[in-house]
Amino acid sequence: MHFASDNSGPVHPKILEALTRANEGYAMGYGADDQTTRATQMIRDVFEAPEASVHFVATGTAANALALATMVEPFETVFCSDVAHIHEDECNAPEFFTGGAKLTLVPTDDGRMTPEALRSSINGEENRGVHGPQRGPVSITNVTERGTVYSVAAIKALTDVAKGFDLAVHLDGARFANALVSTGASAAEMTWKAGVDAVSFGGTKNGCMGVEAVVFFDPKHGREFELRRKRGGHLFSKYRYLAAQMTGYLENDLWLDLARKANMANTRLVEGLRRSNSADFLWSPDANMTFATLPAETHEALFGAGASYHLWEGALDGAAPDTPIGARFVCDWSMTEATVDAFLAHLKP
Amino acid sequence: MHFASDNSGPVHPKILEALTRANEGYAMGYGADDQTTRATQMIRDVFEAPEASVHFVATGTAANALALATMVEPFETVFCSDVAHIHEDECNAPEFFTGGAKLTLVPTDDGRMTPEALRSSINGEENRGVHGPQRGPVSITNVTERGTVYSVAAIKALTDVAKGFDLAVHLDGARFANALVSTGASAAEMTWKAGVDAVSFGGTKNGCMGVEAVVFFDPKHGREFELRRKRGGHLFSKYRYLAAQMTGYLENDLWLDLARKANMANTRLVEGLRRSNSADFLWSPDANMTFATLPAETHEALFGAGASYHLWEGALDGAAPDTPIGARFVCDWSMTEATVDAFLAHLKP
Amino acid sequence: MHFASDNSGPVHPKILEALTRANEGYAMGYGADDQTTRATQMIRDVFEAPEASVHFVATGTAANALALATMVEPFETVFCSDVAHIHEDECNAPEFFTGGAKLTLVPTDDGRMTPEALRSSINGEENRGVHGPQRGPVSITNVTERGTVYSVAAIKALTDVAKGFDLAVHLDGARFANALVSTGASAAEMTWKAGVDAVSFGGTKNGCMGVEAVVFFDPKHGREFELRRKRGGHLFSKYRYLAAQMTGYLENDLWLDLARKANMANTRLVEGLRRSNSADFLWSPDANMTFATLPAETHEALFGAGASYHLWEGALDGAAPDTPIGARFVCDWSMTEATVDAFLAHLKP
Amino acid sequence: MHFASDNSGPVHPKILEALTRANEGYAMGYGADDQTTRATQMIRDVFEAPEASVHFVATGTAANALALATMVEPFETVFCSDVAHIHEDECNAPEFFTGGAKLTLVPTDDGRMTPEALRSSINGEENRGVHGPQRGPVSITNVTERGTVYSVAAIKALTDVAKGFDLAVHLDGARFANALVSTGASAAEMTWKAGVDAVSFGGTKNGCMGVEAVVFFDPKHGREFELRRKRGGHLFSKYRYLAAQMTGYLENDLWLDLARKANMANTRLVEGLRRSNSADFLWSPDANMTFATLPAETHEALFGAGASYHLWEGALDGAAPDTPIGARFVCDWSMTEATVDAFLAHLKP
Repeated sequence: MHFASDNSGPVHPKILEALTRANEGYAMGYGADDQTTRATQMIRDVFEAPEASVHFVATGTAANALALATMVEPFETVFCSDVAHIHEDECNAPEFFTGGAKLTLVPTDDGRMTPEALRSSINGEENRGVHGPQRGPVSITNVTERGTVYSVAAIKALTDVAKGFDLAVHLDGARFANALVSTGASAAEMTWKAGVDAVSFGGTKNGCMGVEAVVFFDPKHGREFELRRKRGGHLFSKYRYLAAQMTGYLENDLWLDLARKANMANTRLVEGLRRSNSADFLWSPDANMTFATLPAETHEALFGAGASYHLWEGALDGAAPDTPIGARFVCDWSMTEATVDAFLAHLKP
Repeated sequence: MHFASDNSGPVHPKILEALTRANEGYAMGYGADDQTTRATQMIRDVFEAPEASVHFVATGTAANALALATMVEPFETVFCSDVAHIHEDECNAPEFFTGGAKLTLVPTDDGRMTPEALRSSINGEENRGVHGPQRGPVSITNVTERGTVYSVAAIKALTDVAKGFDLAVHLDGARFANALVSTGASAAEMTWKAGVDAVSFGGTKNGCMGVEAVVFFDPKHGREFELRRKRGGHLFSKYRYLAAQMTGYLENDLWLDLARKANMANTRLVEGLRRSNSADFLWSPDANMTFATLPAETHEALFGAGASYHLWEGALDGAAPDTPIGARFVCDWSMTEATVDAFLAHLKP
Repeated sequence: MHFASDNSGPVHPKILEALTRANEGYAMGYGADDQTTRATQMIRDVFEAPEASVHFVATGTAANALALATMVEPFETVFCSDVAHIHEDECNAPEFFTGGAKLTLVPTDDGRMTPEALRSSINGEENRGVHGPQRGPVSITNVTERGTVYSVAAIKALTDVAKGFDLAVHLDGARFANALVSTGASAAEMTWKAGVDAVSFGGTKNGCMGVEAVVFFDPKHGREFELRRKRGGHLFSKYRYLAAQMTGYLENDLWLDLARKANMANTRLVEGLRRSNSADFLWSPDANMTFATLPAETHEALFGAGASYHLWEGALDGAAPDTPIGARFVCDWSMTEATVDAFLAHLKP
Repeated sequence: MHFASDNSGPVHPKILEALTRANEGYAMGYGADDQTTRATQMIRDVFEAPEASVHFVATGTAANALALATMVEPFETVFCSDVAHIHEDECNAPEFFTGGAKLTLVPTDDGRMTPEALRSSINGEENRGVHGPQRGPVSITNVTERGTVYSVAAIKALTDVAKGFDLAVHLDGARFANALVSTGASAAEMTWKAGVDAVSFGGTKNGCMGVEAVVFFDPKHGREFELRRKRGGHLFSKYRYLAAQMTGYLENDLWLDLARKANMANTRLVEGLRRSNSADFLWSPDANMTFATLPAETHEALFGAGASYHLWEGALDGAAPDTPIGARFVCDWSMTEATVDAFLAHLKP
């Protein structure tokens, strides 16, 4: 009963197979190989963006920080949600890679910025001549860090605000596939057709070993990104093994199948929690993450039975049996119906 | 006939097997897993350093730049050879990760610093109060970028100079196994017993997919390294797959076997070149890299036959048939005797 | 009627005299001169801190950013108020000088952090292992950017919180003299006796041409600061002219006299505003800055009469005559009673 | 007998007068004042560059590092002489301000780069795809750090090389006036007419208190420079006092008069040294700095008589009386004929 994170499940066998297939003979390093050519083309096809500049790195933090560094000047500020991964979970990587740019935090209720809040935050900067930071790009996370999902229309509403200030837009898509499955949108609809300029397209959380694609729809950014990637130590010499993961991930829409499995497991979990009447949802569980409270005694029972997940608010120590304690539950592609059901069996009816 | 680089050969099957074995069920991310515990212990055993702080990253540039950033202040300078990888091949990564520290280049003939040249370079800095950079760590590469190897005594002579100025010493061991095989030294003898404080212990060039260990013999550096690693986007969420590569690499001394194979292939190549009387060696081919001149017509014949390698000095265009043109030949673990012989067959007798 | 800023008034004649006196013959550069020795001693005397490390720079941003850079690691975060000068008015200088550290903004009502809010912000960081930034120093501004003043007890309450987490404390004292005059505290009482570790001691806003002292009560920080200062281009070659400003500023308590004049002018202004019944104070005008609303028509009359100051909230364009519009009024040492009275004469009775 | 540095003499009285004149009443901060408008125009007139973007800072290191940071990307390298001030005497400020760009050192005999050596250094970079730094701007110092001077033709020959690679050119003119006086060239001839894109125009070493102008002949760089300047803590709030120094410096060609006095004093010194037959010149003393050897006993006599200057090569301790020991002698505007003669009186005939 492992609901701790979508980075603690195994790599999907087809991706290991792709690595094995790629392991034949010689291949020039640093991306000058056939796997890379093929993976690049597949990404362009997925995004319906034949000119896009496509780059692979191994971690989500690298993808985000390098993408933003390419889009921002060090005397600018990036607009993002107050719970954005780039703010809370990257140990100042954006500040580091951008040479000291700032993040301006847009307040959110559920991880999703509203157009009004974004506009207000943008209006709050660049009012002080050279004394304050200048306005830089907007970074949106979808699926958000609270498990909620922006619709394409909601993304478009944010990019409209950004474009009104002539600001570029980055999408942190660490769980991009889950967002697509949740909304039914295509990759193009969720990104460039909605005004997004660059995407961190996640693979790691959805069954890969460690690969993310950074996609710039305007290829003018490509060369600078590649120099920043090398300078950041993020250019793999044996690049074919990043590319191979990506081909295995995209072939026959495996990536969407995996996200569908994760989201469906989450739905099963949510329905069970609802039925139990013992859970309160902190935010809308739109994709593969659920934040909900359970009574302290239920947590005790679950942990006693070997479940793993993170408590989010409150603490079990000394809590009364019926005290509601928040937790985060994440389903990855490998979550089975049986495991969800075993989990649910511990809930009070 | 691929002699271009030791990053263009395949991953050794045993390392793929280790990845496959590691791909069972759940494992907590970021290093809180059994594979990591085991790989860490194996590294400590290899180095006979039970207290060492051990960290895995995916690229050599990350290993070097993060290790140095942990050891240097931004107002200091790192002493390294004038052809060091950290100077020539990392696109300013050391300057970036250190926050703007300088590299002071020690002149070398064959990639190896002499104690005299190192002392002279150190003496040349920190003579200007706060106006010039302050002296920082010494970084040594073994195998050097010219294919030469420092003996343990030569390493010791350099660390003695460094210690005389109270400076720490880093060893860039991207080809550390090849250096050990070449000298017969143990990992401990080549490092802490010889005065080295931190090592970038390479796996990628010697049969792994993408893994390097950074080892600090004084564990006080560990926490700072880990924060810098996360901030650099170099902390893998699915860390077990870095660790698994390393366990596969170290089990049953595979790492030394692979280096031995590479070095022996190189020896066979060197002997053939010597016999041919058509080659001049630019530097002593001590490990798995050979820099030598061949007549232009021989290069033409080799390239015509499908050989791949990098020319190093001079250009074929318009050269007379007997003009000597320099080249670099690299053997990795997968280089066969047959391939070496096929290569040698193109040499003029 | 210039109330725009305390950086737009003239330099006090005694400080110009000190510069002229210092302009005799040769003096070794970079601080190896008698003026510097004397100014350093005077600062130590003012702070009753004979061991303090004392350094002069020309701007407040340099003082703050260099002091913080000496106190923080790049993977940490600095706690400061949500309206701190280091956040709003230094164009990312702290992020730049610290190598990419973050600022965590403590919410305030009137520019003053409460111990509870500070504690809550500190508790909100460093809960995510290496994923989030680590807790770094606390930076307090006194006089605050809203014109309010912390008492010594209020400072002590904040440093107690900081010390409870083993965090260092920096005081941005761009208007330090005004805060002392306002509270009646001594320099020592306001700083090290209250738990402050480092101060940016302002001169520029209080009658100097351009000089601030950075004072570390633990001199161990001195050498690193000096290297960072030089690296930041903030070491003056003709250092005696920084030192001379400081000696002129401190001699015969000129600095306190000037702050007293500024604060008294402000008090006269505040009393006039109160009497007029046309002003609402946004925050408590404790020192030499007042934030208050006036009816739009009063602003029109004042600007028509040549007054200069910054509107703070709202806009005159299209406002009804009696619409209250916020503004900031700053008195420097050169503000005369006559000017204040001329200003007040424009208020509606 | 003070020959230690041109930063240890006093400020010229006319510049103090200009400061005093500027100290009347209110003036808006940060450059929005009449002094600044006037000083800017005077600089444009001096350079015959009506469109130039002109910015004042207080130190030479700030001028150089900020100018270069505006012209270079962090993954590039700056080409400069192996004894450039930006390399030897700025404690890594260029690396800091550029976000980690590298300096590529062009070997020189006498502080002056030759076109051949510059071309060779440029050819030596950017041969490794993304692995090495990319070529960035060329920085030339005139007067050089060895006291030699580039002619306009020599500058032009270097900028021709740079332009052949499409690289921008910066001129470090900390002693720009001395170079003009030495060559008879105009400011325009020495800079944009010779292919220079940006100049650090020095005032501090030539009689000012602390002011340098950064001039971009293409004003497109202006805004970025201003944001970088603020971010670097180098924007003066009481900016009029930087501007006033510059107006005092430029009025009635004071700047050229002062440089002429310094260069003439140096010529008198050089002639005396030549006559004495006891000196060997290390490099051609073209402006206001002379590097020469004198017998150890002469140094002893001079120091005994109170002379101040820096030894450059060798050490007096234990030297035989006739051992030649190198030294640097610098004349500033305030050096008198009498002082030079007093110095020369100590030489052996």
